[in-house]
Amino acid sequence: MLVAHGSRRQASNQEVELLVEQLRQRLSGKFERVEGAFLELAEPAVDQQLCELAAAGIEEIVILPYFLAAGKHVEHDLPELLEQTRKQYPQCQLTLLNHIGLLPGLLSLIEQVLD
Amino acid sequence: MLVAHGSRRQASNQEVELLVEQLRQRLSGKFERVEGAFLELAEPAVDQQLCELAAAGIEEIVILPYFLAAGKHVEHDLPELLEQTRKQYPQCQLTLLNHIGLLPGLLSLIEQVLD
Repeated sequence: MLVAHGSRRQASNQEVELLVEQLRQRLSGKFERVEGAFLELAEPAVDQQLCELAAAGIEEIVILPYFLAAGKHVEHDLPELLEQTRKQYPQCQLTLLNHIGLLPGLLSLIEQVLD
Repeated sequence: MLVAHGSRRQASNQEVELLVEQLRQRLSGKFERVEGAFLELAEPAVDQQLCELAAAGIEEIVILPYFLAAGKHVEHDLPELLEQTRKQYPQCQLTLLNHIGLLPGLLSLIEQVLD
C-alpha cells in the first residue's frame, strides 16, 4: 500500500494512481494486491483502505509512505492510523517501510538528472 | 537549487539540508554552488535564496523541486516565485526541472525496495 499526501489538484492524485497501477503490474507476482491511499484531500483515505484490506482477510500489509521528508504526516499521523488498525484487526500484520526520501539510490538518481 | 516544502519538524528540514550537502559534494565539479530552499515553514525561503544567488552574479540557476507529486506548490507557487525573480534579475537564467516524482528510475527504485 502506497500512502501519498493527497492534493486538491486531481492531476496530482492521478500521478499517484498511475504509479500504483505501474507497481501493481510489476509486483503482481510478489503481492496479492497493490493499492494506494491518501492522508488528506483525496480518496481512498488511509484508514479506509487499511480497514478494507484487513477486513478482506489480508494477512500482511506493507505500507510505503510516498513522502520525501519525514514531517508530521510520516512521523505521527501515519503511525497513529496504523495503531488504530492494529487494535481493530490484530490478526493483520502491518509493516511500515521507510519513506521514499530514505530510499537507497535516490541521491544517485538526483545526481544523474543534474549531470 | 533544491526546493523542498519545509516542515515544522526541524529533523525533516535537516534531512533536506543533508541531501543538499551530499549533492554539493558530488556535484562540485559541475555546479559553482548547490543550495537548498523551502517553500514554507523553514529558511531560507525560495525567493530569498533566488535573489541571493542572482544578486551574487550567478548566470544560471537550475531548480529541482524536491516533491513527489505536482500539487499546487509545484504547478503554481514555484513558477510564480521564479517569474518574480526573472522580472527582478532578467540577466539570470532560471531553469525549472521536473519534480522528483517524474525522475526516470524512481519506479524501479521503489520496486527494488519492495522486492
